[in-house]
Amino acid sequence: MSAPCHCKHVDDSSSNDKLSALSPELQQEFKDPNHPANLICELCRLFYDNNWVTGTGGGISIRDVDGTNPNLVYIAPSGVQKERIQPWEMFLVELPDEKILRTPNDIPKELTKSYKYKPSACTPLFISCYTLRDAGACIHTHSQHAVMVTLFFENEKEFAISHIEQIKALPKLKYNDETGKIEKIGSMEYYDKLVIPIIENTPHEEDLTDSLQEAIKNYPGASAVLVRRHGIYVWGETVWKAKVYNEAIDYLLELAVKMKLAGIPLVKQE
Amino acid sequence: MSAPCHCKHVDDSSSNDKLSALSPELQQEFKDPNHPANLICELCRLFYDNNWVTGTGGGISIRDVDGTNPNLVYIAPSGVQKERIQPWEMFLVELPDEKILRTPNDIPKELTKSYKYKPSACTPLFISCYTLRDAGACIHTHSQHAVMVTLFFENEKEFAISHIEQIKALPKLKYNDETGKIEKIGSMEYYDKLVIPIIENTPHEEDLTDSLQEAIKNYPGASAVLVRRHGIYVWGETVWKAKVYNEAIDYLLELAVKMKLAGIPLVKQE
Amino acid sequence: MSAPCHCKHVDDSSSNDKLSALSPELQQEFKDPNHPANLICELCRLFYDNNWVTGTGGGISIRDVDGTNPNLVYIAPSGVQKERIQPWEMFLVELPDEKILRTPNDIPKELTKSYKYKPSACTPLFISCYTLRDAGACIHTHSQHAVMVTLFFENEKEFAISHIEQIKALPKLKYNDETGKIEKIGSMEYYDKLVIPIIENTPHEEDLTDSLQEAIKNYPGASAVLVRRHGIYVWGETVWKAKVYNEAIDYLLELAVKMKLAGIPLVKQE
Amino acid sequence: MSAPCHCKHVDDSSSNDKLSALSPELQQEFKDPNHPANLICELCRLFYDNNWVTGTGGGISIRDVDGTNPNLVYIAPSGVQKERIQPWEMFLVELPDEKILRTPNDIPKELTKSYKYKPSACTPLFISCYTLRDAGACIHTHSQHAVMVTLFFENEKEFAISHIEQIKALPKLKYNDETGKIEKIGSMEYYDKLVIPIIENTPHEEDLTDSLQEAIKNYPGASAVLVRRHGIYVWGETVWKAKVYNEAIDYLLELAVKMKLAGIPLVKQE
Ligand SMILES: [Zn+2]
Ligand SMILES: [Zn+2]
Ligand SMILES: [Zn+2]
Ligand SMILES: [Zn+2]
Repeated sequence: MSAPCHCKHVDDSSSNDKLSALSPELQQEFKDPNHPANLICELCRLFYDNNWVTGTGGGISIRDVDGTNPNLVYIAPSGVQKERIQPWEMFLVELPDEKILRTPNDIPKELTKSYKYKPSACTPLFISCYTLRDAGACIHTHSQHAVMVTLFFENEKEFAISHIEQIKALPKLKYNDETGKIEKIGSMEYYDKLVIPIIENTPHEEDLTDSLQEAIKNYPGASAVLVRRHGIYVWGETVWKAKVYNEAIDYLLELAVKMKLAGIPLVKQE
Repeated sequence: MSAPCHCKHVDDSSSNDKLSALSPELQQEFKDPNHPANLICELCRLFYDNNWVTGTGGGISIRDVDGTNPNLVYIAPSGVQKERIQPWEMFLVELPDEKILRTPNDIPKELTKSYKYKPSACTPLFISCYTLRDAGACIHTHSQHAVMVTLFFENEKEFAISHIEQIKALPKLKYNDETGKIEKIGSMEYYDKLVIPIIENTPHEEDLTDSLQEAIKNYPGASAVLVRRHGIYVWGETVWKAKVYNEAIDYLLELAVKMKLAGIPLVKQE
Repeated sequence: MSAPCHCKHVDDSSSNDKLSALSPELQQEFKDPNHPANLICELCRLFYDNNWVTGTGGGISIRDVDGTNPNLVYIAPSGVQKERIQPWEMFLVELPDEKILRTPNDIPKELTKSYKYKPSACTPLFISCYTLRDAGACIHTHSQHAVMVTLFFENEKEFAISHIEQIKALPKLKYNDETGKIEKIGSMEYYDKLVIPIIENTPHEEDLTDSLQEAIKNYPGASAVLVRRHGIYVWGETVWKAKVYNEAIDYLLELAVKMKLAGIPLVKQE
Repeated sequence: MSAPCHCKHVDDSSSNDKLSALSPELQQEFKDPNHPANLICELCRLFYDNNWVTGTGGGISIRDVDGTNPNLVYIAPSGVQKERIQPWEMFLVELPDEKILRTPNDIPKELTKSYKYKPSACTPLFISCYTLRDAGACIHTHSQHAVMVTLFFENEKEFAISHIEQIKALPKLKYNDETGKIEKIGSMEYYDKLVIPIIENTPHEEDLTDSLQEAIKNYPGASAVLVRRHGIYVWGETVWKAKVYNEAIDYLLELAVKMKLAGIPLVKQE
């Protein structure tokens, strides 16, 4: 249901008011709607609408691949409502040393919450995608379709589906002997089998790092890792690729849940 | 489906027009978007969009924990469409005597409905959360996931789920011998069992008070009480905590319904 | 999913531009957001968002019970996308003779479609609710929950549910010997059994009139009539009451579908 | 869930800013909200909200039937997020020779993406609907209801449903001996059986052309073709008719999935 629109249309001016408390450099940065910090805010609101992030869980990190320093990574703080974060609440980290260049704790108090911000608990997982796969962005959701799939296949180490058109939205990846990197060589085909590894959940999100890295290494063709009873990590070459991959994968997970309930095999026997 | 946006963008000026009929003090109060009366309006619209409040059922009450007098409680009127209430339609009550400081019946008639407003029938239940748990806000929804869970476990007195990541969004509570109060000592763990008591519905909402209070006392670890064939009450230390807890619990109830239909146990046997 | 907001924010001015093609009297009328013609537009957009009206089906008619002439009835045209109708596209009919006072065919051509408008095929059904029940508004939806319920009970002549809190949103109606009218004497109780008659669909919507009238007469306690494999008609004393009743009934129909699929009886045995 | 509205309300001015990089002719064209290129943008956003297009899949093409040259066809580029396309990113093609009159590759670089645009892979399928059926618009979605129906009837060559009111939103079509064309002779009746052919998916979308054309010829009464494990193509005399038909068909496919899961026959036996 949609409540009648009551938006006050003061965002613009109020945002400007708020921005004026920032340094002139930051004011200038955040005026660009395509700035990574602004895109994180925009996409978190979209993910909230899609029920992919809820409460304070889930989120997205962006590496500034189109900027002057592609080693800069933007990360949301932990424990905040993702649909309400503001661009100045991000942590700015530089790879490969993960040096923190900027924290929301340095931002004028009238713009921030009164507690001490910490980077999202997903940080080492996001960083793993950047370092192991040269990702430009990494999305983490608590999508119920992802959780249900890991419950349906409680004893399996991977999820697989084939012969669905939407699979073609996903990249075909291959190890390049010369560069020593996993590279995109095209798109998956309709009849290809999409395989996503499932790792076991751990009490603390950061403890997922080892098994996530292992899964990324063992599945060179994967653009995502499912976490049992928890959700999914999806990455891509850029923020928009990551968004498109995440949408395609969530579509396939949603369809897989319906197929499973209807007794239809996920991988077509030919 | 989303109809094309037809919003007239006159809210701002029309709201201002309307505000001008209020006393200067109230005009000033309601200019703050974080005023409890404004937050109740904003969150009721969100809850309507989520199908948590519908018709005239459900709602939220906020205690002004960050204000100069944390004993002030804002309560919506009964029998109104919650997604359309206005800040001046709230009752303002002072604890512990529940003295009514302000009612919408005192507001100029051009801003209100022509009937005599009464406080929401949930009032004694909201008050119970304030007095027994020092809550800063209390949410009541008619979520169908909540109703379905109470129907699936028609003969049970509690709902339980474990080993789902979203459980970590909920607080770990413990009785403090020194203060004599239930206090938050951290967050629940992934492997913890979330238990929410279920009380039986009564013909009149206010008659739920005794059993709600009993459940709150018997379940010191709970942040919510399910009401059979009716919905749920969720509270938190602040309005934002209550919102986050309610989102996390509704996510878990929705997932529980899916797991139940798929024959997956809600509490993992280890 | 929610696409990024691209609204052009020109509605206001463009509406004003358009309005200027109307007579000064109509311009004045349609400036009031609570004018029945404007409310029909607003609510049709809401119903479209809720998947209650789709394609060109479904809609709402309002009788101007708060206006100077409560015999005036506003009716949308047939065969148009309900989420896109404009206030000047309504038919204005006066009861009891159903005299057409205004049609969209009289409106300047730049504001209307090029074909000849006809009143909605639901007109005789809406009129039946006005004349037999003194309704202030009547809603017709093609809600899939309504259709599914009529399919689950293919051989039944009525739908019944009890012991769900949301039932309390519906009116308790009783025949008044003195006035000879069905009147609201309060609200239904939680333990009451809500009964909605189901009539069989006919090839032409207007041919439903006789069986709808018969159902209205045979079920003096009903505020709605289900139409098998088609949808539902819901009415109320005012437009807002009709909206609230329709939301409560659709909530109950949605819940009933879930209960039925889960094998839970709709009427509680005590 | 709906995140709080954060729209910046700069679309208008920013769009105007952007428009100023275009030729004066294009600036003038795109000022009309009913221009086919603008309608494609508007409807793609709506389809994204409805989960009909996701990632970069699905879309809509419009033939300018109301313009001075009804042979002009607007087609979105391939591989872009459909909910974010802009009017100047369309290909403009003239029938019957499919001569490309305008491509987004000619548009100033500050308005477009840095890669070389290609027309949507659906182009030959859209063109088939224009040439074989004189369609005014053609919609392609990856609706999960469409995919599920083709999975439920994995061995069938057509989908059929009858005796549902929403069927009446669809056109009754007949071959006209004199004109040699399929023409609309009215609307389907409630008791009519709606039949939609199902064709098998192919690795490349353009390779669907032959079987789509064959299905269109073999099913003169059809306004749509389902593609197994992929989605659906729906067309209509105008963009608005195509939209209404697609909504009605998707409603029926969604209902069919529910009926199938509940064991209710889709075609009523009389
Ligand atoms: Zn997580
Ligand atoms: Zn209640
Ligand atoms: Zn109808
Ligand atoms: Zn496709």
